[in-house]
Amino acid sequence: MAVNLPLPNQHELKPIAGLRLGIAEAGIKRANRKDLLVIRLAPGSSVAGVFTQNRFCAAPVQLCRAHLLEKNPIEALIINTGNANAGTGEEGLRRAQETCDALAKELGLSAEQILPFSTGVILEPLPVEKIISAIPKAVAALKEDDWYFAAEAIMTTDTQPKAASLTIQTSAGPVTLTGISKGAGMIQPNMATMLGFIGTDANVNAALLQDLTREAADLSFNAITIDGDTSTNDSFIVMATGQTKVSIQSKSDPAYAAFREGLISLSRQLAQMIVRDGEGATKFMTIHVKGGKDCFECKRIAKSIAHSPLVKTAFFASDPNLGRILAAIGYAGIDDLDSSKVQLWLGDIWVAKDGGRNPAYQEADGQAVMKQSEILVTVDLGRGSSEETVWTCDLSHDYVSINADYRS
Amino acid sequence: MAVNLPLPNQHELKPIAGLRLGIAEAGIKRANRKDLLVIRLAPGSSVAGVFTQNRFCAAPVQLCRAHLLEKNPIEALIINTGNANAGTGEEGLRRAQETCDALAKELGLSAEQILPFSTGVILEPLPVEKIISAIPKAVAALKEDDWYFAAEAIMTTDTQPKAASLTIQTSAGPVTLTGISKGAGMIQPNMATMLGFIGTDANVNAALLQDLTREAADLSFNAITIDGDTSTNDSFIVMATGQTKVSIQSKSDPAYAAFREGLISLSRQLAQMIVRDGEGATKFMTIHVKGGKDCFECKRIAKSIAHSPLVKTAFFASDPNLGRILAAIGYAGIDDLDSSKVQLWLGDIWVAKDGGRNPAYQEADGQAVMKQSEILVTVDLGRGSSEETVWTCDLSHDYVSINADYRS
Repeated sequence: MAVNLPLPNQHELKPIAGLRLGIAEAGIKRANRKDLLVIRLAPGSSVAGVFTQNRFCAAPVQLCRAHLLEKNPIEALIINTGNANAGTGEEGLRRAQETCDALAKELGLSAEQILPFSTGVILEPLPVEKIISAIPKAVAALKEDDWYFAAEAIMTTDTQPKAASLTIQTSAGPVTLTGISKGAGMIQPNMATMLGFIGTDANVNAALLQDLTREAADLSFNAITIDGDTSTNDSFIVMATGQTKVSIQSKSDPAYAAFREGLISLSRQLAQMIVRDGEGATKFMTIHVKGGKDCFECKRIAKSIAHSPLVKTAFFASDPNLGRILAAIGYAGIDDLDSSKVQLWLGDIWVAKDGGRNPAYQEADGQAVMKQSEILVTVDLGRGSSEETVWTCDLSHDYVSINADYRS
Repeated sequence: MAVNLPLPNQHELKPIAGLRLGIAEAGIKRANRKDLLVIRLAPGSSVAGVFTQNRFCAAPVQLCRAHLLEKNPIEALIINTGNANAGTGEEGLRRAQETCDALAKELGLSAEQILPFSTGVILEPLPVEKIISAIPKAVAALKEDDWYFAAEAIMTTDTQPKAASLTIQTSAGPVTLTGISKGAGMIQPNMATMLGFIGTDANVNAALLQDLTREAADLSFNAITIDGDTSTNDSFIVMATGQTKVSIQSKSDPAYAAFREGLISLSRQLAQMIVRDGEGATKFMTIHVKGGKDCFECKRIAKSIAHSPLVKTAFFASDPNLGRILAAIGYAGIDDLDSSKVQLWLGDIWVAKDGGRNPAYQEADGQAVMKQSEILVTVDLGRGSSEETVWTCDLSHDYVSINADYRS
């Protein structure tokens, strides 16, 4: 049911020098599927991450935050699917720690040099013994050109792996970025998403990489929503191995601008792939809100539209019941919004003019746009010059089926 | 698909002296259905109302606000279903005004003595000629004992009319309250609901009635949610005809406490009927959040749980995937929430203890509660003594079907 989501071509996913991936079958939720991924980084790599703002953040997220704060040289990541290790209290933290301990021992590192990640069902104990038994297999399998299967190993209700590569030309030479992401439900990332990983061979200053990671997250993963549910496990990680000669130590470095643009572009591709594979999705919608006083209110209104079950079901039905969009703008919580200044377009069709139905609007024109699989909704608030874009999908019968049956 | 929603007994709905109801078929959306209701109040009645906070509030809501602010003696209400007259700009206001003008002429009143209400599809022109032609028929039909058919005449996707009556004994004598409500989707009332009307024969001071109406709305209609969509047309009106000898002019009047309690009780009944008839509802859930620092954070968390599509689909499936409730608590936006102090019960079953899975929790126990049609979710935040309750329903295939097909 994915919307125009291309299957990544395994041979077009570029290896990143200094970054190896190892996959294993740990049997966490069921047997015979890849569910464990280990990423090994060359010494000297920079790693930056942003994580969920959910107060019930998962045990591995708590460990990641601690390990990054301590400014340890991070040299490995371990990611499991099938269990989120969230809502698991102190016992969950202990099990996440045991996972790090086991991988550290296997690799000859300290546990603080490892970032752990989990995704899957919440409130169930992490089967840590199964993970520990599979770690040697994953480590034995480490290699540079395994991004495609790495993307597969982190899937939950995703219908296909999500991955992309990019080579950018900087004034200092070429830099390669390759990334993977996953997520199909419980998607309204807040500061990061439900697992996104990008590797690059550039040599990037650690503090600068953290700033860039946050900026890229805001412009990509934080601008998507599927169901408005912010996960307990959202994590977005950028790893720079520094194996090329391209060095980016400050914003004034000549390669900075090209690298920043490439990172944002790849992040957006990966984020949009998550929406295209949204649970039950049949439509991909871009919600562009402009003419706002500030970016905050633009994003708030865009998310209000994107979260409305009534708007989402109308898109599913290809029904131009567009008053539902006005209602969602109206209840977004912008107290001084003057509805008579609001304009609404569906694709190129001007639907609402000065807060009311555009007299020239013909329903057949709206209907034609609604039937498309990629739809642009544009709102002009008429009160400023700020703008924001959010990407989302529709709400279909399959969303209900998938989430009513997820654990069975 | 309504959840334990009793059909009101036509003969148990008590007439209110001084309040007559007239119903007609105006053919607004389709022929041969009751879609127009006129309520005529005896001179000297007090009327109070609270309305939607949606910035795209409907044209009739704008007129209601203006007419109530001008402190005219309100003597009639006119309510149509089939068209919301919202998102209709200046032209919509003109049409709502024409409706008031026509009814005023028919009744020998001024237009400012009339409150207009509309419910139905947004962004489509109100067929005002059809309404004006049907007004004489509705006025000719005015009678005191027609509450049942009045409830029918304001339905949209409701599966059955919603009405209830109450007679309370005050120290000054008996007082009767009868009310009707409607609403099944686009339901997250903010300050009022998608059409609730209560009549009483008590003689209530106008300012006091306004305070009581707001309080009753907060404790009833503002505590329900079906899909988190706040309508453009929410209105809750209390009409006191003053035809009994019971006079309530201030909070110190002996009858005040009993009247207040009765009004809140009837409002809650009507509000809960809306949830029981929620679009596609198969379960009725009571979300009780306690141990909060203030009521605001309790309600915010209760609504976060009640709005989560993942929580709602789990209830639909009778699947105790209760980690989704913890996730919804965690992303409710309470930044300093300590998840290790949070407890969660499903019915009497203690599911999450100190932020993690209760070691004594057995999934079979959770499953048994999830299968019931009425489910209590209790959350203790462990940081204060405030509490709030919100009522909601599940998210089923039928919600998607109803809203994908609503206009067809």
